[in-house]
Amino acid sequence: MKIVIGVMGPGDRASKTEIKLACEIGQLIAQNDWILLTGGRNTGVMDAANKGAKAANGLTVGILPSDRSVGISEAVDIAIFTDMGNARNNINVLSSNVIIACGMGAGTASEIALALKANKQVILLNAERESQVFFQKLGANNVFVARTPEQAIDLVKEILSNSPLKDRSPIGMQDS
Amino acid sequence: MKIVIGVMGPGDRASKTEIKLACEIGQLIAQNDWILLTGGRNTGVMDAANKGAKAANGLTVGILPSDRSVGISEAVDIAIFTDMGNARNNINVLSSNVIIACGMGAGTASEIALALKANKQVILLNAERESQVFFQKLGANNVFVARTPEQAIDLVKEILSNSPLKDRSPIGMQDS
Amino acid sequence: MKIVIGVMGPGDRASKTEIKLACEIGQLIAQNDWILLTGGRNTGVMDAANKGAKAANGLTVGILPSDRSVGISEAVDIAIFTDMGNARNNINVLSSNVIIACGMGAGTASEIALALKANKQVILLNAERESQVFFQKLGANNVFVARTPEQAIDLVKEILSNSPLKDRSPIGMQDS
Amino acid sequence: MKIVIGVMGPGDRASKTEIKLACEIGQLIAQNDWILLTGGRNTGVMDAANKGAKAANGLTVGILPSDRSVGISEAVDIAIFTDMGNARNNINVLSSNVIIACGMGAGTASEIALALKANKQVILLNAERESQVFFQKLGANNVFVARTPEQAIDLVKEILSNSPLKDRSPIGMQDS
Repeated sequence: MKIVIGVMGPGDRASKTEIKLACEIGQLIAQNDWILLTGGRNTGVMDAANKGAKAANGLTVGILPSDRSVGISEAVDIAIFTDMGNARNNINVLSSNVIIACGMGAGTASEIALALKANKQVILLNAERESQVFFQKLGANNVFVARTPEQAIDLVKEILSNSPLKDRSPIGMQDS
Repeated sequence: MKIVIGVMGPGDRASKTEIKLACEIGQLIAQNDWILLTGGRNTGVMDAANKGAKAANGLTVGILPSDRSVGISEAVDIAIFTDMGNARNNINVLSSNVIIACGMGAGTASEIALALKANKQVILLNAERESQVFFQKLGANNVFVARTPEQAIDLVKEILSNSPLKDRSPIGMQDS
Repeated sequence: MKIVIGVMGPGDRASKTEIKLACEIGQLIAQNDWILLTGGRNTGVMDAANKGAKAANGLTVGILPSDRSVGISEAVDIAIFTDMGNARNNINVLSSNVIIACGMGAGTASEIALALKANKQVILLNAERESQVFFQKLGANNVFVARTPEQAIDLVKEILSNSPLKDRSPIGMQDS
Repeated sequence: MKIVIGVMGPGDRASKTEIKLACEIGQLIAQNDWILLTGGRNTGVMDAANKGAKAANGLTVGILPSDRSVGISEAVDIAIFTDMGNARNNINVLSSNVIIACGMGAGTASEIALALKANKQVILLNAERESQVFFQKLGANNVFVARTPEQAIDLVKEILSNSPLKDRSPIGMQDS
């Protein structure tokens, strides 16, 4: 079974910074031979991460809220059509080995919360202070903070290698 | 179509205060002839709200994560078995006219976020400062704060009557 | 917990006979103090069954495929909005103590099959010979055939009373 | 976007013939550079189709009913964990360009019915007469019958090429 890294983040309301970071994250995920999983839409963080991954010849999976090809990112290789709206957010997190949240919004927040409910590790990238404080209180040792895509990837590697992250102060957690 | 008020909150980790508040909220919902909707399990806020509603002869609907009667609150009249785990959280909020969150946890946070994503109004009861700050930033005018069950009910009435809550400072919003 | 009887059947393509039978079945369900559960839409068997139940002062639950009130039967008391299209068919059958299929169509067939998968009992009303043959082979002792609404209700009572239906030839099974 | 062919069929109750056919179908799907999609479990038709596809160096996607790796076919490359039981059957069919049903059972029947509801084309392989009669009546021009894996693949090619299958008598439809 292949390793799947989920990248979650705002759609239409994504900032330019978030789109740039998502593109970089997608590229790095592909370069590490991991599969990229997103919500699959042709906008914001989802679209940017998929484009980044394809630029590095990665494989991309999109878990769509709809039942057809309207609104799907052109950079999605394998489209899973759920037709279940935002309830598909739970599938996004259950199917990812690690989740990277790039930016924040109501949909993204639901994915982080569902990930923590499922005892999954989440890396917050470009999260504002309020989000860090809230989710680190909510998720305790399962929430990590990265300031750059490279730091996020380092954290993914540590999580995948099952290193005892909880017992020390990992890269990128100083801010939180 | 009857009015449905959703009460969301922690299960096994609910505090005594949260259980007491949930019981009172359930009772008040029944007294207002609204239907109570919860996640339906026999623990924490869900169970207490259902028991409160039944004590006041209310009607209760439980949206269960499982496919059978194991773990269901005895005070649920109508059990909807989804067998879809926490993805059912989206059904909880879509089916409620207004959502009251009593306490906080990963599941509850996912429900608030999904509610805001669906443009629903959410009332936070007994929420800590970090939660208020995070969700009011996330949900802008759709998030309200109540300090008592009575305040929460007053807010429900205002929301249902479609009064222009956004243009004034409603009861219970001072803290946020 | 209240007893819930699910009535499934075609929407837009329902025949006049199916609509008449659905209305009668809804009425009989209400008269037996059971709750009626349907797919909740304002068309065909769903709408007719709900109207029949309301005419007899019953309580009706609709499990909607959508996320809002568009297309919902006026005779639904409690609307559960799933926003998950036909995947909600599984919720319909899991939440019903017994399922009555009135007429046939692709959606109805999926509900019968999902019910049998979940080891639920299904009563076929006004089913054509091919449907009876197919589902009785598929579901063995869990599929029953009724020629009239009254026969269907008698079968529901027998199933609810847990009588050993399998060891004898119940009313209405002669045709199959 | 890659072409995804769904193979559905019995799990534990699959016959030796069905397992053999599923393995061959999986192999042929891979040889045509299509992606294989199944329900992902380590049993019956799902497992056999995945193993066949991997033997031919194909890429396999499994849409699991559960939330973790228990019971997953070793030959699944990309596991989508839905945690929604048989409601995931709707995702299986919505995400497949064409569906091949190999054998019959309650789960398989629900997938065929959901596929027809979504206006998808379904090929029945090794289906008994009753199943052919029932589904061809239900799905009209969207249901095809194949006697061999090779015939099924020929039908997939015709469907994908959008040839006017309805206006002539395609290979393998004589029996129905």
